[in-house]
Amino acid sequence: MKQQSLFSPTMRDIPAGADIASHQLMLRAGLIRQNAAGIYSYLPLGKRVLRKVEEIIREEMDEAGGQELLMPAIQPAELWEESGRLDDYGPELMRLKDRHTRDFVLGATHEEVITSLVRDELNSYKKLPVNLYQIQTKYRDERRPRFGVLRSREFIMKDAYSFDASKEGLDQSYQAMYEAYEKIFSRCGLDFRAVEADAGAIGGKGGTHEFMVLSDVGEDTIAYSDSSSYAANIEIAEVPKPNVERRGEEKPLEKIDTPNMRTIEELSAGLGIEAKDILKSVLFFVDDEPVLVLCRGDREVNDVKVGRYFDTVQVESASPEQVLQHTGCRPGSIGPIDLKEGIQIIADHEVAGMMNSLCGGNEEDKHYTNANIERDFRVDGFGDLRFIQEGDPSADGQGTIKFAKGIEVGHVFKLGTKYSEALKAEYLDENGKTQPLIMGCYGIGVSRTVAAILEQHHDENGIVWPKAVAPFDLHLLTLNAKKAEQSELGTELYASLRKAGFDVLYDDRKERAGVKFKDSDLFGLPVRIACGKKADEGIVEVKVRRTGEMEEVHKDELPSYLESLFHTIQ
Amino acid sequence: MKQQSLFSPTMRDIPAGADIASHQLMLRAGLIRQNAAGIYSYLPLGKRVLRKVEEIIREEMDEAGGQELLMPAIQPAELWEESGRLDDYGPELMRLKDRHTRDFVLGATHEEVITSLVRDELNSYKKLPVNLYQIQTKYRDERRPRFGVLRSREFIMKDAYSFDASKEGLDQSYQAMYEAYEKIFSRCGLDFRAVEADAGAIGGKGGTHEFMVLSDVGEDTIAYSDSSSYAANIEIAEVPKPNVERRGEEKPLEKIDTPNMRTIEELSAGLGIEAKDILKSVLFFVDDEPVLVLCRGDREVNDVKVGRYFDTVQVESASPEQVLQHTGCRPGSIGPIDLKEGIQIIADHEVAGMMNSLCGGNEEDKHYTNANIERDFRVDGFGDLRFIQEGDPSADGQGTIKFAKGIEVGHVFKLGTKYSEALKAEYLDENGKTQPLIMGCYGIGVSRTVAAILEQHHDENGIVWPKAVAPFDLHLLTLNAKKAEQSELGTELYASLRKAGFDVLYDDRKERAGVKFKDSDLFGLPVRIACGKKADEGIVEVKVRRTGEMEEVHKDELPSYLESLFHTIQ
Repeated sequence: MKQQSLFSPTMRDIPAGADIASHQLMLRAGLIRQNAAGIYSYLPLGKRVLRKVEEIIREEMDEAGGQELLMPAIQPAELWEESGRLDDYGPELMRLKDRHTRDFVLGATHEEVITSLVRDELNSYKKLPVNLYQIQTKYRDERRPRFGVLRSREFIMKDAYSFDASKEGLDQSYQAMYEAYEKIFSRCGLDFRAVEADAGAIGGKGGTHEFMVLSDVGEDTIAYSDSSSYAANIEIAEVPKPNVERRGEEKPLEKIDTPNMRTIEELSAGLGIEAKDILKSVLFFVDDEPVLVLCRGDREVNDVKVGRYFDTVQVESASPEQVLQHTGCRPGSIGPIDLKEGIQIIADHEVAGMMNSLCGGNEEDKHYTNANIERDFRVDGFGDLRFIQEGDPSADGQGTIKFAKGIEVGHVFKLGTKYSEALKAEYLDENGKTQPLIMGCYGIGVSRTVAAILEQHHDENGIVWPKAVAPFDLHLLTLNAKKAEQSELGTELYASLRKAGFDVLYDDRKERAGVKFKDSDLFGLPVRIACGKKADEGIVEVKVRRTGEMEEVHKDELPSYLESLFHTIQ
Repeated sequence: MKQQSLFSPTMRDIPAGADIASHQLMLRAGLIRQNAAGIYSYLPLGKRVLRKVEEIIREEMDEAGGQELLMPAIQPAELWEESGRLDDYGPELMRLKDRHTRDFVLGATHEEVITSLVRDELNSYKKLPVNLYQIQTKYRDERRPRFGVLRSREFIMKDAYSFDASKEGLDQSYQAMYEAYEKIFSRCGLDFRAVEADAGAIGGKGGTHEFMVLSDVGEDTIAYSDSSSYAANIEIAEVPKPNVERRGEEKPLEKIDTPNMRTIEELSAGLGIEAKDILKSVLFFVDDEPVLVLCRGDREVNDVKVGRYFDTVQVESASPEQVLQHTGCRPGSIGPIDLKEGIQIIADHEVAGMMNSLCGGNEEDKHYTNANIERDFRVDGFGDLRFIQEGDPSADGQGTIKFAKGIEVGHVFKLGTKYSEALKAEYLDENGKTQPLIMGCYGIGVSRTVAAILEQHHDENGIVWPKAVAPFDLHLLTLNAKKAEQSELGTELYASLRKAGFDVLYDDRKERAGVKFKDSDLFGLPVRIACGKKADEGIVEVKVRRTGEMEEVHKDELPSYLESLFHTIQ
C-alpha cells in the first residue's frame, strides 16, 4: 500500500494523557484514536496488527481442536439471573433495555450464553469433548479506563469454553489450551510467564493459570524463580516448607507494658526486637468461625492461603469491633496466649521455629515477651499461610524467588460445574445417567495483547514490531521522490516485492528523507528498504529495524536476500 | 474436521416459526441458533460461511482501494445530536447509559463516528480521496425482527465511507464501490440486480443503488427490463415519455350525478367507463403549497416523482380535511375544473393524450364527463409522475418492464456534504480554502448475504452451497464405518485430500448410510465422496451436490479429478 493514501495520522509529540509507551506509540503511529473514555477506533495500521494477532490465535485454537462460533454481544438479562451473576457483576456490566423494555446486558463474558446454547443442543457423552471459541467484542464498564486499549471498556477478546464428561477430560482440555496459549504468545513475540493463580473454590489447586507478559506497567505482581520456569501470582505463590529448628533456651514468659506500640514496626523500634522475633497474630473469620492466624512479624498473612488451608473461599479479616468482641482488646494487642476458648489457632510453618518471641497480650497496651510454643500457647495446625517474598526459595526447589510486574493477556480456568449446574446443562453418560457438563473457560485479551507487544517491543524512536504481527513486512522508501531513478526503482521494487509475497508499505511521498526515516522508525516495520543515491546502480539500503543492521543490496538479489533475512530476524 | 466432533446440531423437521427457506435451513443444518428475538449465535458451520463471505468482501474492498479499520459499537450520543439523527432515528436506535449516566447509542451505522474521526485527522486535499471500511456488528432494534438473520437486531455489516475533494471524485469513488459490489455478489454466487433507488434530497438522480438479490421472499419490489440490465426500485423507476396523440372529437362537457361513486373502480363500474378514460386527481402539499396532480385512472401517482418534479423531498398527501378545505369536497370528487385559485396543477405525460375524460366536479357526488384539457382545465406542467407498471417500456429503451421481489444485500449512496457540514469535517483545498469533505457511504449486510445465498441455493433436500462460500469443500463419508476397508480408505483420503489443499468434513460416524446421506444433502457441501462397497478396490463415489452428477473414481486419481471438477462447478 502507498503511504500517501494510508489513513494513519501520526503525531510528533507525546500525546497528553498517555502515560505508558504502548498507549503513546499507538496514538503517535496512528494505530488508534479515542472516541470516548475507554472506547477506541483501530485505524488501518492498528487493524492490520489486530488481524495478525487474531489469525495466530485462530490457527492455534483450530490446531488444538477448537471450533469457532460467534455469539451475540447483546444477552438476555434473565440468563444472568439464572447464573446469579446479574447482581454479582455490579456496575461493570453494561445494561440496556430494548424497545419493549426487556432487560439485556452487553456481554462482559459468555459463560451464560454458551452454557445455554450447549444445554439445548448437546445431550450425549458421544458428542464430548467439545471446545467452542469466538473472537468478539466485549464490554466492561471499567471504573477507571486507562492505559489506552490495555484497560478499555469495549475490547476484543478470544473466549473459549470446553465441555467434558469427566475431570480427566477437563484436565486434557485445559492442558491443550495451556499449550495453545504458550504457542500463541510465543508467536506474538512476547516474553511471558504462565502463572499459577487463585482459582477460588471452583478451580482448586492447579485450576487456573494467568498468562502474564512481563512489563513494568503491569498491574499484577508475579513471583518467579530466577532459575526455572516456575511462576505464580503473589496472591497464591507457594512458600516451600522451611526446615525449622528451635535453638537456645526458653526464657521466662513476662507480660510487659507496650504503650502506643501497636504495629510490628512500633514494637520493633520501641523494644529493640527484630521483626522476625515478633509473633504476628491476625484474627479471621473462616466460614463465619473465628480463627487466629500466626506468622513471623516480618511476614504477611495470606488470606487466600488461609482459605485453602480450610478448603473454603469464605475468609474475612475481623473488623476492629470483632477483634474487641472476641479478644477483649484492639488488633494491635492480640496474641495466642490466654485466648478465649473456641478460637482455633493456626500458624505458618516458620512459627514452629520461633523462640522467646514477643506477642500480643490480649489486653490493651500489653504484650508478652519470651512466648514459646507449647509451653505458653497451643497451635492447632501448621501450614503455608504467608505471602511469598523476594529471596524466598522457589516452590519447585530451583532457585530463589524474584518479583516482576505483569500484564495479564490470557487466562485459563477450570470452571467445573458452576455454570452447568446453575443453568442445568446436562448430558447423558454411557449408562444413560444425567450428569452436569464439566466446563473450562479460556480467555485472551486480543486488543490488550497488541498493547503488551508494544510494551515489550519499542525503543526511543518508535515501535519495533515482531515480524509475525507487523502491519506490513517491508517499508520501502524513496529518499528523494523527485529523482526519477529513485522513484523508478521504488515503483519497480514495490511491484516485484509484492509479487514475491511481501506486504509492502511504500513511501514515495515528496517529503524530506529525514521525515521519512522518522516515520519509518515510528511505524517500526521489521525491514526498511531505502532507494537513495545508488538507485541508478540498482542498489538499495536494507535496514533491520530491531538491530539497526544495515546492508547495501542490489535489486536483483533483493528477494532472496530478504527471504533469508526474514528467517533470521525476530 | 471430523463430523463426530463438529458442533452442528441438526433438525429433521421444519422448525416452528421459521417461514422462509433460508431461516429453516440455517436452523436445520445447525448454522445458527436464536438467543433472543432477532438475536442469533452463529454455530461453527455458520461462522465458517460468514468468514468466507467476509474474506470475499475484504479482498474486493482492498482491491478497490479501501482501507479496513474498526470503530466501536458504543458511540457517544452527543455525536448523534450533532448530526441531528438522535431524535430522527427513533426507537430502532438502541440506547444505554454508562456508570456515570452518560448517554451512548449502539451503532446502527457509523456516519457520525467516521466523520468525527476524519474531521480530527485529515485536513488537506493531498490526503484525498480516502475510502475507509469496517466489518462490524451493528444494532437496530427492529419493531418486528423476523426471517432469521434476514431481519435481525444484532447483525454483521460491512460499511465503507469515502471522502473526496470534488463531486467528480465522489463519482469515481462511487463507481469503484459499485463495481466492487458487483464482484462481491457475483463471487458469492448470487443472482442480483443493481437497482436505482431513491436518494432523497441528498443523493439526487443516480445517487444511489441498491443491490438486490432476486427472491420471492424479498421485501422490496424491483422493476426490471426483460431484455437489458436496467433495474430500479419501483419507488423511483422512470416511465419513458409516451407518444401521445389526441384523436377524435371533443364532446360537450357535462356535470353528472355520481352518488356513492368515489373510487375509480366504483365510477368505472357505475358509469361503464374504462379506468384509463377517467382522470385521477390527487391533492398534495409540496413544500407546504397545495398541488393537484393528475394521471390516468388506471395509474397511481408517485409522490417521490412529484417531489423530484419540484426538486424537493417535502411532499405530503393532503388529508380528507385538507382536501375539503381547499376544494370544497371530499377526495373522491376533486378535479381540475373550477378549482380554487392558487392551486398549481401538474399532470403525468399520459394525461396530454386523454380525450373526453371523466373527472371530479369539486362538488360532493358530482363528476364531469367529456372533460378536455385546455378547453375545460389548465395544466401548469407535465412530467413523469406515476408509478411504473408491469408491461411498461423500459426506461433504457430496451424491452418491457417486469416486477420481481428482491432482498437488499448492499447499498451505495452519495452522501455529499450532509454529515461533513453537520459535523464540520473540512479540508483545505489547493488554494488553502476550507471546504467540506464530500462523502459517500457503502453498506453490505454480511449476515443477510448468507441468508440471501441460501434463498437462491437450496433444493428440497437441503442447502446447495456455491463453492466460494461453502463451509467445507468436500464431504467425505464412510457408508459403513464398521467395515475396516471403508474406514481405512476414509482415513487415508481424509489425510491426503487435506494435504491437497481441500477443506474436508469427514463423517466416519457409526450411523446408517441413509442418515449420513441425508445429513450430507442438508449440509450441502459442493462435492460428496462416499467410501462404500468398492473401498477394497480403492474406488469411491464422487457426487456433485448441485447437479446430482455421480462418478466412480479411483483414489489415486481423486486429487486431480477433484481439482478439475472444482474448476467446472459453481
